[in-house]
Amino acid sequence: MNQAIVITIGNELLQGYTLDTNASWISSYLRDRDIEVSNRLTVGDSKQEIVSSLSYAINKIKINLIIITGGLGPTHDDITKDVLKEYFSTDFIIDKNYLSILKSKFVRINMRIPKNISSQATYLKNSLPISNKNGTALGMQIVDNNVTILVLPGVPSEMKQMVQDCDLFKTLKLKNKYYTIKTAGIYENKLYEILFKEIKSNKNFKVAFLPNYSGVDIRLSRLSKISEKLFSEFKHKIRKLIGKYIYSDSDELLEEVLGKKLNTLNLKLSIAESCTGGIISKKITNVPGASKYFLGSVIAYNNNIKKKILNVNKETIEKFGPVSEEVAIEMARGVLLITDSDISVATTGISGPDGGSDEKPIGLIYIAINYRNKNIVKKFNLPSNRKIHREIASNIALNMIRLVINK
Amino acid sequence: MNQAIVITIGNELLQGYTLDTNASWISSYLRDRDIEVSNRLTVGDSKQEIVSSLSYAINKIKINLIIITGGLGPTHDDITKDVLKEYFSTDFIIDKNYLSILKSKFVRINMRIPKNISSQATYLKNSLPISNKNGTALGMQIVDNNVTILVLPGVPSEMKQMVQDCDLFKTLKLKNKYYTIKTAGIYENKLYEILFKEIKSNKNFKVAFLPNYSGVDIRLSRLSKISEKLFSEFKHKIRKLIGKYIYSDSDELLEEVLGKKLNTLNLKLSIAESCTGGIISKKITNVPGASKYFLGSVIAYNNNIKKKILNVNKETIEKFGPVSEEVAIEMARGVLLITDSDISVATTGISGPDGGSDEKPIGLIYIAINYRNKNIVKKFNLPSNRKIHREIASNIALNMIRLVINK
Repeated sequence: MNQAIVITIGNELLQGYTLDTNASWISSYLRDRDIEVSNRLTVGDSKQEIVSSLSYAINKIKINLIIITGGLGPTHDDITKDVLKEYFSTDFIIDKNYLSILKSKFVRINMRIPKNISSQATYLKNSLPISNKNGTALGMQIVDNNVTILVLPGVPSEMKQMVQDCDLFKTLKLKNKYYTIKTAGIYENKLYEILFKEIKSNKNFKVAFLPNYSGVDIRLSRLSKISEKLFSEFKHKIRKLIGKYIYSDSDELLEEVLGKKLNTLNLKLSIAESCTGGIISKKITNVPGASKYFLGSVIAYNNNIKKKILNVNKETIEKFGPVSEEVAIEMARGVLLITDSDISVATTGISGPDGGSDEKPIGLIYIAINYRNKNIVKKFNLPSNRKIHREIASNIALNMIRLVINK
Repeated sequence: MNQAIVITIGNELLQGYTLDTNASWISSYLRDRDIEVSNRLTVGDSKQEIVSSLSYAINKIKINLIIITGGLGPTHDDITKDVLKEYFSTDFIIDKNYLSILKSKFVRINMRIPKNISSQATYLKNSLPISNKNGTALGMQIVDNNVTILVLPGVPSEMKQMVQDCDLFKTLKLKNKYYTIKTAGIYENKLYEILFKEIKSNKNFKVAFLPNYSGVDIRLSRLSKISEKLFSEFKHKIRKLIGKYIYSDSDELLEEVLGKKLNTLNLKLSIAESCTGGIISKKITNVPGASKYFLGSVIAYNNNIKKKILNVNKETIEKFGPVSEEVAIEMARGVLLITDSDISVATTGISGPDGGSDEKPIGLIYIAINYRNKNIVKKFNLPSNRKIHREIASNIALNMIRLVINK
């Protein structure tokens, strides 16, 4: 298998109510296994459209895998199975064993067994059934004229589990053709400057820079003819050149990496947020187990809170303004003392759309860290879009903590 | 025009790196204008694939609109225009006026004019050019055999603006065939119970319940033969039956509706968050102008913070545990007093994955409000998935405030 088409079925996809995340996940899963998705089709719950898309896919030369998702549920608009039955002129078989497992699932959670439950346990005579651990509808694997067709439910959690359970892919080794390095705290052009020579002198590898709100991801890929060993050497060289900016080469988020580090070092964190308004705290507490290293935060949106809870001096605010290096430092110190934490971070800035001036434009932000009786404070002029400003600012704050404790 | 096909072009879409949000937005835009998207195709930046998808779309009967996005940029993998030129055996024309506008854009922001800029100002001889206000690539409108083909860039902000500017759609009236009521604080089955009779006795309207983490959206639609007046009466009846649960019938989020209300009533809000860890604060401060009604928050993840900053009694925590009605009440009172706000909300619960017990399982949460010297506290057993728990809990908190101040 090397060329695939994905067909997603569902009126809700075509009407724009639901974003098609399945197609994207499947593409990415297959890519890692060296199967190229050359086409994606989305059709509604209509017999004619399903047949038309399937014919298109089956008749395309070179295609040897078709993945179909959606329309397997128990309601009247779920017609995928019926359409396929007619298309292949075949019959339904009931998977009795699976049906009894399904029924017992409902009994276990004290739910009434739905009337039409048996429809969820049928599969086509020309197919192999695929169990659905996270839902009810059975999937199917059909082989037709050297084309393998997988038929899966549209619910993402069910579909993903079934793809991962599928024998079809188990035999395919991960190709290690791609490798992503996630960096923070450095601009794309600066990264490029550092890596320029290495990239130019290694034409067997592709390097793509993907900037995002956390930083820049660097995606490396090797040509098929190049060995994994050489690729590994190339990765190593690239990593070495930009060492400290790398926070992850896995799916881990910045806050997860930071959380682990804080936990390992047994450091307790506190946060004082003004313009970021809770985003840093939210990110930190998104991570399970955050209570091990996170004590708490003060969101000091109003200046009185800065003074009253964080003990920022009235004079400091009056003299330098609430958005200033000095206030950021005092906020960080204030929250550290009041929470008795080991390290703290504070933000004060102007996220907009109001509040900017010539001297202090929208986008300006100061981020301060207090650690081991030292202050680190940095000034940034970030984009003036409120949402983007807050998102980038929170990631910078997380990364600043990471860099400080990594020293 | 009534039947459309959307073709999105780009390797990044097929490789799963980018989620195809364009297709979904276009579908929704067309649906509101009574144009049905019967198919969506996604192909890579490959001549063969683009041609194959275009032939498929053009040759489909009943289709009279094709929207193509992507592949119009200036880099070597943007080949859409070249492929179309060959497909229609036609030539390029340079839009000199547009080109000079483009160049002056670069001059204005002090950027070097890119070498291949003129490629961005070309269009096909058989097309009408479509200006791109938010970017560089010119779009095109081609009419071929009664099928209108729109060719637009893949960058969402550019594409959307160009669709909205397009004369083609300006003549189409919004059909008012759909109406969405957003509710919070009531379960889907309870809503259905209340609306059951009304729905059953009005077969000319469709009613769909769409549960989400804020509550349940109710989507009403009318059959084409039914007048807008009758639809409007039906909307009114439905609204009347579930009045207080409705928070919006527009794109407004719960936190935006709440913000406006707080502002109108001149009420200042403060928040004490334990398990929600900053999400409520983040949502409140996502709204521009939140500083008018939001003072600040204390994220009391650690019990010491609850005691020290929020003045929760040590005895209350010892006697009832940190996750209790009593502690929630004291947290709400504490944050109200320390911030001198008019109203406050507090959360304490168990988001998991650890910390649950038989008596207090994962998912349990208490949410308290302090307003006009009164406490309101509610207990919820929410899903045990950490992310979902936090998301739902924060929305419940926002809605509780909304309901209290609406009284």
